[in-house]
Amino acid sequence: MSLITDLGAKARVAAGELALAGTDLKNKALLAMASALRAKAEEILAANAQDYKTAAAAGMSEAMLDRLALSPSRIDDIADGAAAIAALPDPVGEVTHMTTRPNGLRIGTRRVPMGVIGIIYEARPNVTVDAAALCLKAGSAVILRGGKEAFLSARALTEVMRGALAQSGLNPDCIQLVTDTSRQSAADMMTAGGVLDLLIPRGGKGLIQTVVQNATVPVIETGVGNCHIYVEKSADLSMAANILYNAKTSRPSVCNAAESLLVDRAVAAEFLPMAKERLDQKKVELRGCPETVAILGDGVKPASEEDFGTEYLDYILSIKVVEGLDEAISHIARYGTGHSEAIVTSDYFAAEAFLDRVDAAAVYVNASTRFTDGGMFGYGAELGISTQKLHVRGPMGLTALTTMKHVVYGTGQIR
Amino acid sequence: MSLITDLGAKARVAAGELALAGTDLKNKALLAMASALRAKAEEILAANAQDYKTAAAAGMSEAMLDRLALSPSRIDDIADGAAAIAALPDPVGEVTHMTTRPNGLRIGTRRVPMGVIGIIYEARPNVTVDAAALCLKAGSAVILRGGKEAFLSARALTEVMRGALAQSGLNPDCIQLVTDTSRQSAADMMTAGGVLDLLIPRGGKGLIQTVVQNATVPVIETGVGNCHIYVEKSADLSMAANILYNAKTSRPSVCNAAESLLVDRAVAAEFLPMAKERLDQKKVELRGCPETVAILGDGVKPASEEDFGTEYLDYILSIKVVEGLDEAISHIARYGTGHSEAIVTSDYFAAEAFLDRVDAAAVYVNASTRFTDGGMFGYGAELGISTQKLHVRGPMGLTALTTMKHVVYGTGQIR
Repeated sequence: MSLITDLGAKARVAAGELALAGTDLKNKALLAMASALRAKAEEILAANAQDYKTAAAAGMSEAMLDRLALSPSRIDDIADGAAAIAALPDPVGEVTHMTTRPNGLRIGTRRVPMGVIGIIYEARPNVTVDAAALCLKAGSAVILRGGKEAFLSARALTEVMRGALAQSGLNPDCIQLVTDTSRQSAADMMTAGGVLDLLIPRGGKGLIQTVVQNATVPVIETGVGNCHIYVEKSADLSMAANILYNAKTSRPSVCNAAESLLVDRAVAAEFLPMAKERLDQKKVELRGCPETVAILGDGVKPASEEDFGTEYLDYILSIKVVEGLDEAISHIARYGTGHSEAIVTSDYFAAEAFLDRVDAAAVYVNASTRFTDGGMFGYGAELGISTQKLHVRGPMGLTALTTMKHVVYGTGQIR
Repeated sequence: MSLITDLGAKARVAAGELALAGTDLKNKALLAMASALRAKAEEILAANAQDYKTAAAAGMSEAMLDRLALSPSRIDDIADGAAAIAALPDPVGEVTHMTTRPNGLRIGTRRVPMGVIGIIYEARPNVTVDAAALCLKAGSAVILRGGKEAFLSARALTEVMRGALAQSGLNPDCIQLVTDTSRQSAADMMTAGGVLDLLIPRGGKGLIQTVVQNATVPVIETGVGNCHIYVEKSADLSMAANILYNAKTSRPSVCNAAESLLVDRAVAAEFLPMAKERLDQKKVELRGCPETVAILGDGVKPASEEDFGTEYLDYILSIKVVEGLDEAISHIARYGTGHSEAIVTSDYFAAEAFLDRVDAAAVYVNASTRFTDGGMFGYGAELGISTQKLHVRGPMGLTALTTMKHVVYGTGQIR
């Protein structure tokens, strides 16, 4: 694993310098990155056009090609994103807690950079800049390993960013790209103990599972969201239809979109036709339990066991009629992925019980699951949604990319 | 992996109940555990005597046999430990942050239990109770997998604790012991995705490395401490000798003990003989760089490169003369394990630079590294010292055994 070790050694040096760089310098570099991306848009677009041509010739799907393609306005958006990160508060250096112990030791908890962060991602060129900018602001050097389909784009973007770093007086090795896009380089990153302090996979379920299964370095698992909207019998049904419609159809391809509807038996006959009428506007395919089929007739297909466990990421919704809160919570415990879960209810006790008993990154009462997002939560920007319980759960903002150390001020204390 | 899956299913049910149990009930159970351990000391001692006999016959070392052996007073200490955990504040349910977003959503960050925690440990029977009591208070079910040498002891302790849980009205499956002590059961725990929310190895370097290398579930790496005392040229040298003596000799077998001395060239000739005089009282073997050897002569052996990277856990100290702060910090970055590092100095800028630039769980000015400990930091009890950067760094108290969820109160918001 000499390439990763080599990049890692350079990153470690850069990380040491970056950890001591002040907020002003980091912000200056982020703004320089934004300017340089705009100024060199043509070079970036030319590299991207080559990637696109190769991928199209290799038969990449339309949806994937759309993710790969850059345009002047997309580059503007990417540059805006970097500039927006400059405007966020700097998490580094905050002392979240400080006490004086009985022996006079003053022990503080100081937020510090992670050190070196690895990001493994796929064919979305914007991740190159988003991830680099977030890591930079959080004070960590980053080693980026993108998919081979977007390699030329990622290389062009990285070169522009490194140039801006150098110009701003920061070590360009704060941002490095793995130039070997073979599986081996990804495998080397996953086992780069001592080189990477943290590895974050960004992409589809397959990538994330590969990293989680194979990494020996600390990893944050992101992404899969089999999110439910549970319509409790006391719900305001028009609010429920509104929330369901939004959660399912406003952007079906993202992880915080709803995939499944649970509805109390007492209101199923009234609610399901209302829900169907709204969802029909977007031609959402419905797959329901036998009771749902009995109520909606031809408008719904029978759902299989597998349907209830599927994150469709598409205009498809599974539906199950439940007896009440307990069954809804059990169903979510069984099929949910711990991402975002919502109840629609007017009952105080049902609301609190749902918040208490559902084990997920975000648990909602009377709101769409689509809010599970760094921007919506007020973090400003994010590097994905953590669905594990260690370190961070839910949107990963700048703070999630830092760690802490104990700083201890003594006057000669011994134990 | 049917045994672990089976235990995991029972643990998941118990965890769901425990997460909703109030502090009073958990404390009652902890006190009942403490009482039961004292009341059934004879049974526990009988089981331990069998383990001891088998281990002694198999040729276990004296040091290991000492760790394995229980006595009435050790059982009292173990029971005291469980009772002390009852007295600690309950981390579960704290809302650390709550804001109202511009759209009226109220988003809170609530501390919640991990769920199911696995602990893999070796032949120290007390870990059985310490780990179970901490997990219980933190609201998580625990699956304990101890070493085969202490199996009968662990089983006796677990049965007593489970009885106390049942008596207190908690599900006994909050605490389960893996009855298969083969390597396979440990391997199954390491890959028990969806079963374990967190796995913590407690024990020697070999165990920890095995778990870190093989686990696909989230792990917290604990333990290895190659800790340095750096005597900067402005140091009060008698304070420095005092701190060094304490850090090296008060308990050499623990991870926060000092393993290496760095001393500025400007004060080496004065300090090294002072240090040697103190360390000679405990017959500490010294292994130094050529300059150290030149100063101390026959009183010190030459140190190899390997010495500087070794956690001796014994009455041995490596010594290196350095030019100043920069060389000391580089040396620590190269050989340290990110555990605990100390500077002794009277210089304000040297102190702050050391705190800023040394990357470790705990960084000290003018105090012994021996304070890196849950009790000393005011956490009350701990489940080891994390030397990784994710989730928790340094002593792992009750809070480190919890996670969080976002609770979102809406009034019909859609995005």
